[in-house]
Amino acid sequence: MTSTLDATVTGTHVPPSPARALVCRGCGAEYPLIAQHACYECFGPLEVGYDSAALARVTRAQIEAGPKSIWRYAALLPAGQDPATRVTLDPGLTPLVAAPALAAELGVRGQLWVKDDSANPTHSFKDRVVSAALTAARGLGFSRFACASTGNLANSVAAHAARAGVPSIVFIPGDLEPGKIITTAVYGGDLVAIDGSYDDVNRLCSELVETDEFEDTAFVNVNVRPYYAEGSKTLGYEVAEQLGWRIPEQVVIPMASGELLTKIDKAFSELVEIGLVEAPANGWRVFGAQSAGCNPIADALHRGVEEITPVKPTGIAKSLNIGDPAAGLYALEAVRRTGGWMDYASDDEIRDGIRQLARTTGIFAETAGGVTVAVLRKLVESGKLDPDAETVVYNTGEGLKTLDAVAAQVGPTYRIKPSLRGAKEAGLLR
Amino acid sequence: MTSTLDATVTGTHVPPSPARALVCRGCGAEYPLIAQHACYECFGPLEVGYDSAALARVTRAQIEAGPKSIWRYAALLPAGQDPATRVTLDPGLTPLVAAPALAAELGVRGQLWVKDDSANPTHSFKDRVVSAALTAARGLGFSRFACASTGNLANSVAAHAARAGVPSIVFIPGDLEPGKIITTAVYGGDLVAIDGSYDDVNRLCSELVETDEFEDTAFVNVNVRPYYAEGSKTLGYEVAEQLGWRIPEQVVIPMASGELLTKIDKAFSELVEIGLVEAPANGWRVFGAQSAGCNPIADALHRGVEEITPVKPTGIAKSLNIGDPAAGLYALEAVRRTGGWMDYASDDEIRDGIRQLARTTGIFAETAGGVTVAVLRKLVESGKLDPDAETVVYNTGEGLKTLDAVAAQVGPTYRIKPSLRGAKEAGLLR
Ligand SMILES: Cc1ncc(COP(=O)(O)O)c(C=O)c1O
Ligand SMILES: Cc1ncc(COP(=O)(O)O)c(C=O)c1O
Ligand SMILES: [Zn+2]
Ligand SMILES: [Zn+2]
Repeated sequence: MTSTLDATVTGTHVPPSPARALVCRGCGAEYPLIAQHACYECFGPLEVGYDSAALARVTRAQIEAGPKSIWRYAALLPAGQDPATRVTLDPGLTPLVAAPALAAELGVRGQLWVKDDSANPTHSFKDRVVSAALTAARGLGFSRFACASTGNLANSVAAHAARAGVPSIVFIPGDLEPGKIITTAVYGGDLVAIDGSYDDVNRLCSELVETDEFEDTAFVNVNVRPYYAEGSKTLGYEVAEQLGWRIPEQVVIPMASGELLTKIDKAFSELVEIGLVEAPANGWRVFGAQSAGCNPIADALHRGVEEITPVKPTGIAKSLNIGDPAAGLYALEAVRRTGGWMDYASDDEIRDGIRQLARTTGIFAETAGGVTVAVLRKLVESGKLDPDAETVVYNTGEGLKTLDAVAAQVGPTYRIKPSLRGAKEAGLLR
Repeated sequence: MTSTLDATVTGTHVPPSPARALVCRGCGAEYPLIAQHACYECFGPLEVGYDSAALARVTRAQIEAGPKSIWRYAALLPAGQDPATRVTLDPGLTPLVAAPALAAELGVRGQLWVKDDSANPTHSFKDRVVSAALTAARGLGFSRFACASTGNLANSVAAHAARAGVPSIVFIPGDLEPGKIITTAVYGGDLVAIDGSYDDVNRLCSELVETDEFEDTAFVNVNVRPYYAEGSKTLGYEVAEQLGWRIPEQVVIPMASGELLTKIDKAFSELVEIGLVEAPANGWRVFGAQSAGCNPIADALHRGVEEITPVKPTGIAKSLNIGDPAAGLYALEAVRRTGGWMDYASDDEIRDGIRQLARTTGIFAETAGGVTVAVLRKLVESGKLDPDAETVVYNTGEGLKTLDAVAAQVGPTYRIKPSLRGAKEAGLLR
């Protein structure tokens, strides 16, 4: 099941898919479009390679006439060109919100935007990657959907499977937030809580995928990971389209595995390459955000080294708690190449970031969004980010999933009896 | 402030607003478009009346070319025609999701749809009414935003105020779900928890609105309620547009004050009147859903009486817990006129409704959505709803806000050690 030629032919690589091959990010070796994520030659991660002539045929008008979801970019994705083949909740086209009050508080003078991906169906950007992965997976003949997750991915896989009527089995660290456990379990699939960290969960899934019992199972971020990762490109495409087909000068992106960051950068490069947008005069700069409790990628950048030292994650930003980040080196490369930077925020700074974003924009983010806003602030303060340039900050998750992060800090400002007298005693009336 | 002629002239009633006057639902008396919600003659509630010639000029093409939010229907709303005047998070155009698996479980053979309004910015339909109310309120010169709320309205008013940079003060019953308290408080406005029920909160707000200290304050569901209520019409317009400009034969709608139900019915009537859609051959039938813990409207229907007896609400569907429903009589009227029906669901049935919807559609609803799905089931079982007709069920809120409702019932299906051996012991592998 995992790699028959049959699956290739009847699966994702049917015209008009622009995908051409799986290409090793390490050595460049090529493989057919099957369920494989690592190179047999060098063990490097595989990525979807495209037929550049097919990409070059895509026009703005074609995209703008498409559906109000990630599928408007189907001609730039590996699967799902035929709507009938999609396994999807139709995520995407989430709001790009101007944030002048936040900019003023931070001393940013250029235009500041928040790309609010909490507006997706299960309220995180993961709906994008899951729609991409499961659409490819169904094309490849898989009949059960699975993932290793820090929470948001679990929600999304379980919901997608429910909508599609396909069984699912989701693996999570046992200590996740209740908001993420219940929001996975309610869809009725199997949910396996593992006594260990995300990295333990991920390791186990890599082993399970090789067993007979899981032969029919697509793990979105293991055996079909190359297709999964492509879904994140849509967060780059959308921002460019929403800015009127322009690329912003600076983007600030949260990192767990680092994949999202590399794919937004890849999306911008593709758009320039195929002529849909012009690059900004001085290019774009990519900035990465982590938490102090899990900062292996930012730490490597700060130390100026080429290797990532895995960490044991701690802290409240659980959705970003990947201690051994699969795409960390590629995230480092993108940030160095574009002249960006990375930083990380403490739990208190994360809480402040959540509250500052809510107060100034009306957007309630989860801890990952708090990380990104807190890091934005640090980047401005340290001068790494140009306060006069246009900046897009990605909020990738929903505050309702991590209520505990701010529960102790916010609450009613008054408690009164239900009478004018009660209001007077509280000082609401003279 | 509350009713100067000045506010009228510079406020909401500037062309091209199609609004003409406030009209008493009881005696038909007319008032200018000011901040007033009850009739001086008969104390009946006021409603926005329109210039029918202005409405009749609206075309499908004009709507379809509009923004991807409720504002595409601006020509059918009292305020917000000029985008610069809007106080809004741009809610609306939420998914209409086909629900074949739910239909099969319930024995519904006609097309069944879920209108999923949890996809709004603060994850309930209240964003629609708040955008309508606050846009009118700003036009009328108010400088502080307020509401009495069962929770969702609180979230929405606080978030809208934060985005607009306007102070807010929100009044809630002290025993609300944490998910609704934190999600209001995080935006940084004032939040007043009241030792009492929603009906107590509402009564206090009606008194506060008359005080000097609150002269500058728009209570979205008190002094600007007529504008607020109009926002709910967009849930009717959107369903009709999303069905390809058709009205479904049956709609099932949750009720608290009953206002939402009456406005969806009003929206359908308007669309027919102005020629944008044809009515279904046998008209449409409107069905109302309440919880057993708060069923004053459904109870009046079941008893065949013309009066609503207020109740003291209990039960888990807190967002619907209005014991003395302001629009209850009008909801009764709409249901009787269209040949629909009402029913109510117990807490256990509500929980089952939430889980059934999640399992079959991938949509995680709050308790109000559980009420609606549970009542849909009862209506099918009792033969009140035609299983062969096309039906739209409204999910108006988000499961993440009421996690406690299902927390005891769903959770991990397995807990294992992070090893193949752990997986084997749990029975995941042979
Ligand atoms: C809310 C949120 N933001 C960002 C990320 C980072 O994604 P990546 O692993 O692609 O770096 C995650 C990953 O789980 C997430 O849940
Ligand atoms: C989620 C939800 N659905 C439905 C309603 C009912 O609205 P109405 O008061 O217009 O009947 C409410 C009211 O608060 C609500 O919060
Ligand atoms: Zn290789
Ligand atoms: Zn009257």
